[in-house]
Amino acid sequence: MNISHIEHLGIAVKSLDEAIPYYENILGMKCYAVEEVADQKVKTAFFKVGQTKIELLEPTCEESTIAKFIEKRGEGIHHMAFAVADGVANALAEVEAKGVRLIDKAPRKGAEGLNIAFLHPKSTAGVLTELCEKPE
Amino acid sequence: MNISHIEHLGIAVKSLDEAIPYYENILGMKCYAVEEVADQKVKTAFFKVGQTKIELLEPTCEESTIAKFIEKRGEGIHHMAFAVADGVANALAEVEAKGVRLIDKAPRKGAEGLNIAFLHPKSTAGVLTELCEKPE
Repeated sequence: MNISHIEHLGIAVKSLDEAIPYYENILGMKCYAVEEVADQKVKTAFFKVGQTKIELLEPTCEESTIAKFIEKRGEGIHHMAFAVADGVANALAEVEAKGVRLIDKAPRKGAEGLNIAFLHPKSTAGVLTELCEKPE
Repeated sequence: MNISHIEHLGIAVKSLDEAIPYYENILGMKCYAVEEVADQKVKTAFFKVGQTKIELLEPTCEESTIAKFIEKRGEGIHHMAFAVADGVANALAEVEAKGVRLIDKAPRKGAEGLNIAFLHPKSTAGVLTELCEKPE
């Protein structure tokens, strides 16, 4: 697999209204988009720092996986997403052949129109891991 | 504060011997250093991906803060470290004036000879946050 950089970090927060001012006023970043992703039951806010985006994730209901993450582990980094240079489908085939469990057997559309897929955290040394590519 | 990029991510793992092969054989990264940091009671392994380093942290005893983190939350991303362009001391003064609690009141030496300081997670929207700069 050819990973070029960390595309984004997904960070679970209880409240965007409380977290966004920290990123803007303390860290000096600029929130460039706020988006509700209904099927994932989250509201997201995006920042850019160098090559990497920070994606804050606020659950919109108790059934959200982000709500369950916060309940179990507290606020914090929920997943790490790598930009892959040779395509997500190729990367999935390669890691599955090496025994990695997949959450997504094929790429699907994620935030900002990227092609994405998640690897199963049982196979990734403890970090929920996403692979991403810009569509051609 | 002028943050240029994510300098590294610190990831708590139970075993470097189990985690390093995942990063090398599955993700295709190369471990370029393994170092024991005695005063922090961890053994570390470093990888580079784009602008950002991944620093795996294995506790060397039960009293390690990393051992306590794993016991409480499981393996996962332990901290996020930003490279600051205008110096860690300046950044600490700026954020303290804005009401952020500090773990380190002044920069100290971290891994790889960087000047580093930690902000208190009570002030950072749930993510233990480190500021770093290369010494002049």
